[in-house]
Amino acid sequence: MTDHIQLATDGKSLLLLDQRILPGREEYFACTDTETTIYALQTMVVRGAPAIGVTAAYGCWLAAREVAQHAADTAQWKNKLTALLDRLEAARPTAVNLRWAVRLMRGAWNAQMDLAALTDTWLAMAKEIHSQDIAINKAMGAYGAACIDDGDTVMTHCNAGALATAGYGTALGVIRAAFEQGKKIKVIANETRPFLQGARLTAYELAREGIPVTVACDNATALLMKRGLVQKVVVGADRIAANGDAANKIGTFGVALLAKHFGVPFYVAAPSSTFDLNTATGEGIPIEERTPLEVTHVGTTQITPTGVPVYNFAFDVTPAQLIAGIVTEKGVLRAPYVENIAKIIGGK
Amino acid sequence: MTDHIQLATDGKSLLLLDQRILPGREEYFACTDTETTIYALQTMVVRGAPAIGVTAAYGCWLAAREVAQHAADTAQWKNKLTALLDRLEAARPTAVNLRWAVRLMRGAWNAQMDLAALTDTWLAMAKEIHSQDIAINKAMGAYGAACIDDGDTVMTHCNAGALATAGYGTALGVIRAAFEQGKKIKVIANETRPFLQGARLTAYELAREGIPVTVACDNATALLMKRGLVQKVVVGADRIAANGDAANKIGTFGVALLAKHFGVPFYVAAPSSTFDLNTATGEGIPIEERTPLEVTHVGTTQITPTGVPVYNFAFDVTPAQLIAGIVTEKGVLRAPYVENIAKIIGGK
Repeated sequence: MTDHIQLATDGKSLLLLDQRILPGREEYFACTDTETTIYALQTMVVRGAPAIGVTAAYGCWLAAREVAQHAADTAQWKNKLTALLDRLEAARPTAVNLRWAVRLMRGAWNAQMDLAALTDTWLAMAKEIHSQDIAINKAMGAYGAACIDDGDTVMTHCNAGALATAGYGTALGVIRAAFEQGKKIKVIANETRPFLQGARLTAYELAREGIPVTVACDNATALLMKRGLVQKVVVGADRIAANGDAANKIGTFGVALLAKHFGVPFYVAAPSSTFDLNTATGEGIPIEERTPLEVTHVGTTQITPTGVPVYNFAFDVTPAQLIAGIVTEKGVLRAPYVENIAKIIGGK
Repeated sequence: MTDHIQLATDGKSLLLLDQRILPGREEYFACTDTETTIYALQTMVVRGAPAIGVTAAYGCWLAAREVAQHAADTAQWKNKLTALLDRLEAARPTAVNLRWAVRLMRGAWNAQMDLAALTDTWLAMAKEIHSQDIAINKAMGAYGAACIDDGDTVMTHCNAGALATAGYGTALGVIRAAFEQGKKIKVIANETRPFLQGARLTAYELAREGIPVTVACDNATALLMKRGLVQKVVVGADRIAANGDAANKIGTFGVALLAKHFGVPFYVAAPSSTFDLNTATGEGIPIEERTPLEVTHVGTTQITPTGVPVYNFAFDVTPAQLIAGIVTEKGVLRAPYVENIAKIIGGK
């Protein structure tokens, strides 16, 4: 599955398979400018750190197109475009890939370029980031598959699959690669309240490819591990600090603590763009709070009494000491993380 | 709230506030015979171990009424009634209160009684169990409130409230009693997938009484505890083994493990009828598996792809060593549990 992020055939907009309504309906949402791109990111038409990065890259190109339609003189277009990039970069706070992609585009913005040249450059860069992401996921899959044994049941939380990336997936890329190697594996997809990425998206992806998957409520983890039904955990990440602390979907931290208790190895799979070496530890990673409506309603059903407040933290941080290995496109990083991340990701 | 289990005004049936559709609608379901009573128990029109016990007691009376309408000679009514009680007693496997109530009724069945006398006896006994349960809960509340400090935020899982009992509640009874003592407490109600007893029932009960409550997805527990937002955990139980291992709603075991990790005291509140001294440890407690439809659908919304299997274990078992205390109507039991349960519950 690689067509969930695609350019429209007229070359004027970005089409995103709407992940809010999967698996019930397969419909595309069109991003035509900065506003629609930010809306798609914030309402989770598209989600998953690498997919957010790819979308943001195309979002810079759309911002440049938008400015070209409305701004006349040079000074004006530069200021307007900068303001749009600022808004885009702040669309979601936790996933560092969004910032990474926008900053990459900003870095290619040469003061001598006119708007047309910049627009062309950014489209080419976005396409490159898009296709590179799939290659990166396949490299991660190849490294990560070695961590999965024949006969394993692998638990995953949220969706770190093709839909969360340009294709193939990070955590699900590891699972796909192990499956493609002929290992007889099964997957337990935690449903992942409130947005149900596991029940809706991970189950949908894996079932389409014939990889055996069973959905479990998030609160079944302790019982399933106690019964010996889980041999490995593999999850994605939205931001990894310089010490290996990894932010991921709410609930991941609890799964990691339970995995530690039951002696189940817990892996994180994420491309090097997910590392934020300017953030020393997980304490420095901002945790997004999202609308209560995600918790209070499922589809058209209201599940809580009107007026009762809810918590809706979208992420939590798993400390590095709970992580058996971080699968990247450069290899599987192990403890001591500070040194190995500096060396392999930071190039020091 | 004590009117959710009530006799119909014509004295011929048992009316149960339908907990499947709360808080959206407040409607009563009529149990008129054994079949409707078993249906109400199995589909969770009524749920919660003590409420199941009370319902089962009335169910014996309804079974006797049913037999009176259809059986002529003596030999026949005894066999028919025994068969109905066997079915009733097996309606749900985990909560021991169901078996406890039916066996209490069987014990009062004197061979000399005719059916009319037995029916009258059982109605009187059911009413006694019904009113006694509220008194028991209030006694538990008085003992348990001492475990809650002024200013605490108390996490609870599932609904061990008035709706789970004849009234007042076990875990929520402890919370109510602390609140009535003037302690400034707040409650975090875990939503408790898949049946959402926390989001639907606990939030509804507490909000009605003005006790501050916030609903959290089940997978937020680790983050909430990490942030210091939880000072105590109090939950109910469906069956407690002779060593203190406690079966309760799926997810409780995970909460208890996380509470241990974060140093948050974890209490169980349950009447002595919840103890099963014939079961040595939690390993001997049967865990009910329920229909996948509870997981795959929320209201009218299907959340998983068609054909993908799910896990739906309804309970898990929390080992006694994770429990700071078991609040009963006879006092708060502490470790060593084997000795203290034998002495205080078993009367040895």
